[in-house]
Formats: sequence, structure tokens, C-alpha cells
Amino acid sequence: MIFPTVDYRRGIVRILDQTRLPLEEHVLELRGPEEVAAAIRELKVRGAPAIGIAAAYGMLAALEKIMKRGSGDRAGYLFDRVEGAREIPAHGITAENIRDELAGARALLASTRPTAVNLFWALDRIEAALGAAGDDPVQMGRRVAKEAFAIHEEELEVELAIGRHGSPLIRNGMNILTHCNAGGLATAGYGTALGVLYRAFEEGKRFTVYADETRPLLQGARITTWELRRRGIETILLCDNAAASLFAAGRIDAAIVGADRIAANGDTANKIGTLGVAILCERFGKPFYVAAPWSTFDTKIPSGSEIPIEERGSREVTAFWGRETAPPGTTVYNPAFDVTPASLVTAIVTERGIMERPGEGTIRRFAAGAG
Amino acid sequence: MIFPTVDYRRGIVRILDQTRLPLEEHVLELRGPEEVAAAIRELKVRGAPAIGIAAAYGMLAALEKIMKRGSGDRAGYLFDRVEGAREIPAHGITAENIRDELAGARALLASTRPTAVNLFWALDRIEAALGAAGDDPVQMGRRVAKEAFAIHEEELEVELAIGRHGSPLIRNGMNILTHCNAGGLATAGYGTALGVLYRAFEEGKRFTVYADETRPLLQGARITTWELRRRGIETILLCDNAAASLFAAGRIDAAIVGADRIAANGDTANKIGTLGVAILCERFGKPFYVAAPWSTFDTKIPSGSEIPIEERGSREVTAFWGRETAPPGTTVYNPAFDVTPASLVTAIVTERGIMERPGEGTIRRFAAGAG
Repeated sequence: MIFPTVDYRRGIVRILDQTRLPLEEHVLELRGPEEVAAAIRELKVRGAPAIGIAAAYGMLAALEKIMKRGSGDRAGYLFDRVEGAREIPAHGITAENIRDELAGARALLASTRPTAVNLFWALDRIEAALGAAGDDPVQMGRRVAKEAFAIHEEELEVELAIGRHGSPLIRNGMNILTHCNAGGLATAGYGTALGVLYRAFEEGKRFTVYADETRPLLQGARITTWELRRRGIETILLCDNAAASLFAAGRIDAAIVGADRIAANGDTANKIGTLGVAILCERFGKPFYVAAPWSTFDTKIPSGSEIPIEERGSREVTAFWGRETAPPGTTVYNPAFDVTPASLVTAIVTERGIMERPGEGTIRRFAAGAG
Repeated sequence: MIFPTVDYRRGIVRILDQTRLPLEEHVLELRGPEEVAAAIRELKVRGAPAIGIAAAYGMLAALEKIMKRGSGDRAGYLFDRVEGAREIPAHGITAENIRDELAGARALLASTRPTAVNLFWALDRIEAALGAAGDDPVQMGRRVAKEAFAIHEEELEVELAIGRHGSPLIRNGMNILTHCNAGGLATAGYGTALGVLYRAFEEGKRFTVYADETRPLLQGARITTWELRRRGIETILLCDNAAASLFAAGRIDAAIVGADRIAANGDTANKIGTLGVAILCERFGKPFYVAAPWSTFDTKIPSGSEIPIEERGSREVTAFWGRETAPPGTTVYNPAFDVTPASLVTAIVTERGIMERPGEGTIRRFAAGAG
């Protein structure tokens, strides 16, 4: 089961609106990079790998827009993930027009969310493809579209590989804690942390997943439980603060989470609350696993202290369904992510294999293709 | 500033409805033990000491009801905290009637919430007063009323003493984490954990309080921030899962919380999530303080594993303001409390003084009146 998290069909970016789950399964149709940027900012699409793919498609939507303008909008649509690039009418636009348009789109998309490195990684790949395409508008269009679809397709392959590599970590009868959502809706459609569980389940293993609800936006309650139940995996929802009592009662055997950015030394940024889960694993002697594609590693920054952490608005914490839950004017601390030091990470599951005791040395070896 | 958490005026139990805070300050007027029991069960009054006082007043309301029935309801009201017991018309009722009525009220009130020991402690005190009153209905009424008002008054004195003893723990410029609400609204009106902070503030110290919102019912967001802001104390609200990142950034100097029941060995039951806070204090080398009246100690039970932990309904977690936040049918783990082992508690602040390194020996000394 591959969830339709984000797609590009007939000139339109299609996104399953995650803010409306689990009450409604509503697909947004986004035209142009502005609408894609807004959807990312408002968390209608979220999760580091999914944000990367959405950003690539935001760039493609910008390209679609300017190239259709060149054709006087006569073409119905130019790009489609399944059909690829159709006949591209490039009358009236120049390479310069395209570069300007895509530079603007890149700046817009890059400004949406600072922590997930996959966003910048995807934008860099699109930019490199554009740079390699020469000055022929039609070639530019073909190359950018090819790259955007490749990012999507490769990420899905990567997730399936993460699932294969990670599945041996999951044993029959285990109780596994997860935080936030690192499933199909955070990714190309299969999942990273949940991908490991899905693969284990497909191989016939049976286990129980404890899902942290993940305040303030309840991605665990709304999305992880929805995904796991769809697949028939036994799931128990809890408030984030109840996890400690489960560990104390011996009811958790391991934790597995995704990641938004991993530094060169293995320090891992992920959804706020992940650090607390890792500390519980340390205290109670349980393994703490991270599952993430190689695109989540940012080896340019030496350690977690340099990862930019997004602070979000106070209203995410002080109101629910639009109604106040705290006195007006309350000051709020609301970072979207925290950083788990590499020393607390038992292993990182990547498409290149399982990286045990992540650190500078192991990450350098994996960067060189090992694993 | 003493908050009007619970009171008994002119024959009526008056409770500030905490489920409507901070949007509304609504005082409930409760007649009879059934209404008081419902208010406790529905968390309209909550916090171990406040539950104890409310239960005592629930017993008094039962007494008021049967004695007024004996007078043909001609008396306007019989008991009032300020006026004490008025002329008691005891025609037509017997000691047996009173004992039966109060036994029923006790069973009802005792069934509301299992974890806070103060509830049973208060019911035991009322029962003992009744037992000592002999067989004269008028004497029985006077003794029970006196005991109920004494419980309320003594608990307030106790809280002020806890504040005095605990204040030296708080230094100027500190950043202090608290969880749930152990303030005036959890008690007779001043507070235990927050009472320590109030006293320090009254002595001129200035500090910042980080308030965990405390899922699922947000007592921290709704009540603790409301109390602290009323008193002018700098307060920052956070989701429970964000505390770890504050500790990692060196932004928390100490944590202080209340308690619902403390076993003979110092193991402490308190609102779910407290154990996680204590583990963070241990990991980052910060003191973890509990503030609680002696009435919270249950020296009859040897350790925390014997404290009954209330499990509450799943809907507290799966819906907000009546609207679903998780897929229908989701299984939920929703204990109202967890147990922090004594080894993680730096000190317990009581009205008898500060108990450092709580354990069997120290608790036995305090039980004998030391401190």
C-alpha cells in the first residue's frame, strides 16, 4: 500500500491534505509554486522526504506555468508523472525567462521551512538539472521534469530499501514506540520508520505499535494511527507524556522514528519530543532507531547545534479547533523540532544499510557508498 | 491571593468549575453528595488536596440534607464555613439515620477517583469524628461540620507552611519547570508546588516558570498559566514533549511538582508525565522537587507499585472540544497518573519541613513529627 501523499498529474501538484486527516481524505490541487509553498508552510504536506518531493514539484509547477504562458496557454498541460513531458511549446520564452522564474520559485520554496534538509537537497537537484540543460527551453523543460519525477521515484525506491534493511530489527511480539509520523504520508508514500514496520508486517511478523500523539499538531494521533490501522497493524495511541510510564512498566522494547536532518556527527533533528523518547530508551536500556534516507544527511554541518530549528506560532499550543485553551497573551515555547545527540542513537536505517553507532567515521564510510 | 477553589457556604458546596477555565470563571453550587461526587469524577474540582476538602464537604452536604429533611426543610441552611453550625433542628431523625446516610455518601465519594489518597484520608477523618460524637444527632452534626471545616482550614495552613519551607529552594533568576497544576486550584487555595513559588515571589525573588501544558486535559495550559499570570509571575507554556529540549539547552534549573499519593518508601504518584520530568532532571543533573502535605503520604503501602492508578476514558485523548482527532475506534492508553521512584526525588517539601532523599527512614522520622 503506497499512500498518495504527493503527486504531479496533468500539470497539477496533487497533495493529500494532512491537516484534514483523519476526518476527511481531501486531495488538494495546487497550481504554481506559491500554492505549493503555502501548503508546505501550513503543513498540508509534511515530513522531510515528502517536503523534498513537494518542493521539486513546486519547481516543476513554476516551469509548467511559464512554458504554458509562452504557448498562450493553448496546451492543456505539459508535464505528468506517468506520461512524462508531453510536446513542449516553447514559443516566446527564453532560457533567461525560465531561469528567472525558477530562481524566484526556489527562493519562495526555500523560505517555507528551515529544518528539513530534504527540501534544500531537492531544490539543489532541480537547480543542477537546470544548469546542465543548456539554453534550449525545450531541453530545460525536459531535464527539470525528468529530475523532479526521478526524485519522487528514487525516494520511493529508497523507502522500500529502508524497509528491507530495517525489518530484521523487528521481532514477533515486540512493542514498539514511534513518535510523530514517519510513514507514507511523510514520504513518497511508503515510509521510513513506519516503512520498516510495514516491511516487517508484510513478512508476517506481528507486533504492537505505541503511537505518541505528538503535540501540538497531533500527527501521531491523526496520521500515524490512520496509516497503521489501514494496514491492519495493532496500534495503541498515547499522550506523549505517558511514554515514560510504559517504559517503566517494561512495555516498550524499542523506539523507531524518522529524521528531518542528520549532521555529519550523527546528531539527529526530528519532531519535537524525539529527544525525550531517546532519553527514555537510554534510561531503560532499549534501542533507539532512526530511519531516514541518505537525502536527510547534511554532512556539510558538523553537529546538531548548527541545525536551524523552526519555531512555530504560539496559537498551535494555545488553541484547539480555533478555541482558546490558555489565557489570552500566554507566552509559548513552541519549537517544531529537537536534536537527539548521536550518542543516544542505536542505529540509523538507511537505503545503504543499517548504520550502527552513527558518528563521523560511520557516516563518512556510508557517504562513500558503503553499507 | 487565595483562590476560591472549594468552599461550603450556607448549606451549599461551592466549587470553581475548573473544566471551564480559562475561558470562564464559573462557580458551581452543589447540593448533596451525588453532585459533589459527579464534580470530582468530571474533574470540575481536581488536585489531591482539593479533592480531599471537596469530599469532606460532600459528607457535610449529605448531613445537611438528612438533617434538613428531619426539620421538614424549614431551616434555610444548617452549616456554613464562616458561621459554623447554626441551630440544628434534629426532630424526627436518629443517629442511625445519620450513620446510614453518611455511609452511603462515603461509598459514593470513595468511588470517584482511586489514586489521590487525600480523598480517603478526608473521608476517614469525617468518619472518625462521627464515631466520636456519640448518639445525639445534634452533637453528630456539630462534630462532623467542625471536622470538615477544620480539614479545609488546616490544609490552607499546611500549604502556607509548605511555601515557607520550600521558598529557600528558589533563587533569583531561576528557570523552573512544573507539570500539571499544584497551585491554589489543586488545593485549599494557595498551592503546594506553586505555593513554594508564590512564597518565593512574595519574598521578592524573580524567576521564570515553564509550565507543561499537561495532556490530555491541559491543566497546565488552562489552570497553571492562569494562576501564575494572575500573580504576575513570568510564565512560559510548552507542550509536554518540548521539555527535553529545554533541559538540553540548559534552560531549566529545577523542577517542582505536586503529588497524589506518596508510598512509605517515597515513591510518588502524580499526574501522568511527572516520571518523564523526573527522568529529565536525573539525566541533566537538576533537582526534582515534590511539594505535598503530610495528608498525601500513605505509609500503609510499602511502594509505588501498590498505588492504584486510575485509567481514564479514551475520548480524553481522541477528541478535542467534542471533535475527533484520531480515527474512530482507535485504542488508547490513558492513565491519569504515573509513579516516580523515590530515587529520582531530590526532596519532598512538606509542612513539617524539607525531606531530603525521601525513603523509608526519612519518612518514618517525619511521621513521628520530625522535620
